[in-house]
Amino acid sequence: MNFTAPFQSITWNQNHLTIIDQTFLPEREVYIDLNTSGQVWEAIKKLRVRGAPAIGIAGAYGLCLGMEQLPDSSFQSFYRESERIAEYLNSSRPTAVNLSWALNRILTSIFAEKDRPVTQLKKVALETAITIHDEDRRLCKTIGENGLDLVSDNAQILTHCNTGGLATGEYGTAFSVILHAHQAGKLKKVWVDETRPLLQGARLTTWELQKAEIPFTLNIDSAAAFLMQQGKVDMVITGADRITRNGDTANKIGTYHLAVLANAHNIPFYVAAPYSTIDMELATGKEIVIEERDEDEVTHFGNKRTAPKKVDVYNPAFDITPHKLITAIITEKGIVRPDYEKNFKSLFS
Amino acid sequence: MNFTAPFQSITWNQNHLTIIDQTFLPEREVYIDLNTSGQVWEAIKKLRVRGAPAIGIAGAYGLCLGMEQLPDSSFQSFYRESERIAEYLNSSRPTAVNLSWALNRILTSIFAEKDRPVTQLKKVALETAITIHDEDRRLCKTIGENGLDLVSDNAQILTHCNTGGLATGEYGTAFSVILHAHQAGKLKKVWVDETRPLLQGARLTTWELQKAEIPFTLNIDSAAAFLMQQGKVDMVITGADRITRNGDTANKIGTYHLAVLANAHNIPFYVAAPYSTIDMELATGKEIVIEERDEDEVTHFGNKRTAPKKVDVYNPAFDITPHKLITAIITEKGIVRPDYEKNFKSLFS
Repeated sequence: MNFTAPFQSITWNQNHLTIIDQTFLPEREVYIDLNTSGQVWEAIKKLRVRGAPAIGIAGAYGLCLGMEQLPDSSFQSFYRESERIAEYLNSSRPTAVNLSWALNRILTSIFAEKDRPVTQLKKVALETAITIHDEDRRLCKTIGENGLDLVSDNAQILTHCNTGGLATGEYGTAFSVILHAHQAGKLKKVWVDETRPLLQGARLTTWELQKAEIPFTLNIDSAAAFLMQQGKVDMVITGADRITRNGDTANKIGTYHLAVLANAHNIPFYVAAPYSTIDMELATGKEIVIEERDEDEVTHFGNKRTAPKKVDVYNPAFDITPHKLITAIITEKGIVRPDYEKNFKSLFS
Repeated sequence: MNFTAPFQSITWNQNHLTIIDQTFLPEREVYIDLNTSGQVWEAIKKLRVRGAPAIGIAGAYGLCLGMEQLPDSSFQSFYRESERIAEYLNSSRPTAVNLSWALNRILTSIFAEKDRPVTQLKKVALETAITIHDEDRRLCKTIGENGLDLVSDNAQILTHCNTGGLATGEYGTAFSVILHAHQAGKLKKVWVDETRPLLQGARLTTWELQKAEIPFTLNIDSAAAFLMQQGKVDMVITGADRITRNGDTANKIGTYHLAVLANAHNIPFYVAAPYSTIDMELATGKEIVIEERDEDEVTHFGNKRTAPKKVDVYNPAFDITPHKLITAIITEKGIVRPDYEKNFKSLFS
């Protein structure tokens, strides 16, 4: 299905990077140019660009911008300096796996061509960055196309957090299914969980839906059950941060809650994620360590305190949805249904 | 069980009312004196006092303060002026049933004594206001005592919204069960849903728990499922705004979501509410009209916009929990279990 994505969150413009500065969203749509690796570092650090795939893509281009400033020296000297820049960029979000993966991929690509002059290696690096970006675009598009088969006519889809073009190279993951369903005329509307504590649904997903002119309604997270009770939700789609080989899925806190509610209301619950999200090294979700985030995300709003001082807070970043509650997992390689372990293995072979 | 409540949200001090100004919570504990019906009107209007029973009690005292200013005229003139004050006070929160109920009860009590001089009628009104307050205190205490039987040793209780002494004459409803469980040494800890959109859990319930020195942890609403999955919740207790004769319960949005989640995790789900909350005129929850509140509650935080302009928002004040998901309803007249219709009838007879 061919259509233009409603915006580009990251664009390479010949010799510099242009990104939407997400810290201004949803109030203002501000694009900024990044000309140095230092500016890319700052943009990632300050969450001007966010979302694991988007961070990886921005970091890859950031490394190219850094290399551009290096002199035409020997390979060893050039590579050592490039590693230093990659390490520096990686320090902007050390826990983002996509970032270190993308930076390493750039380094690997120049190492493989180490006999060529440095001027050419800079081009190799940029080609790799553009490839990383294009691959992510393509896989997001394919996820959307694959997911389309699961969407019934006139569907009301509920989604959580932000999984759109802001967080990826383009289109998004769960959001790509929504975009494609809309393009295909199958979508009635989207229900958007605001997604506490950081409100990515209220701030970002709504903005993306407005850009794409897709009808939607925003709701607080705990109203999802009531919507389902009223028959207003035909399917739930979320993204995934990590999927273990039995299909257990780690994703934004509140995902498991939706899976339980969908199950109780006989509504299909889908996960949309790139194939690379599936970690065949992990047997079950029990092996995933849950990151707990800063209490301030719950006790404050901006600088305004909303809970008493010295309260104890539980603020997990993710939860684990057991595979039994997941109707199917949508990847760029196709739709995977239970038994996940068996079907992942045939996908991987 | 005898113990002192950790604070008094409303106190009658000989000739004036003292309340906690809830608009300063949780940051500061400020008590203000109200000397006129106009000040009580303003306190209700500006949410300095909130919670249906607390509003009724404050309104009742407010009417007495207004009567105190009236001249010692004929009964008819005194009654007409009193009705005018009651109407004025009722306009501060016209949808609060407890407010109009309490104001009418004061008027009824003086009408019943219409042959007595006005100076004495003022005393009758005050006695009625004190009775309304005392009755609410007693019923809240009894709800807590009755609910105690349902609490297992070393229990972790999850609750939603604010149902404590701030919202009632003293002790609260669901909160009273928590207070009594703590006093009885049966409570391990409380999980507090922050309760979007207005954060009554984060702002008020946490404050009350701190005052009572009860151990607790604050969580976002959509983390409740994950807590249950981890075996950290032994029971859920919420309040109720209205209960129909089959046991269906209207309460703060997010209550139904907890009931579904508790059911899916085999955790008992209890509702604690005064007997007067049960409306035998209504057959099922389908007859309850759901109030939708202002979109700004979801799209703004204070004056700060958190969603794009022109977003469509679904912001129901309440949801309906079907009786099948409710393990028992705790009232001051005892614990009611299914079949609710049958058991309510024997309670009412």
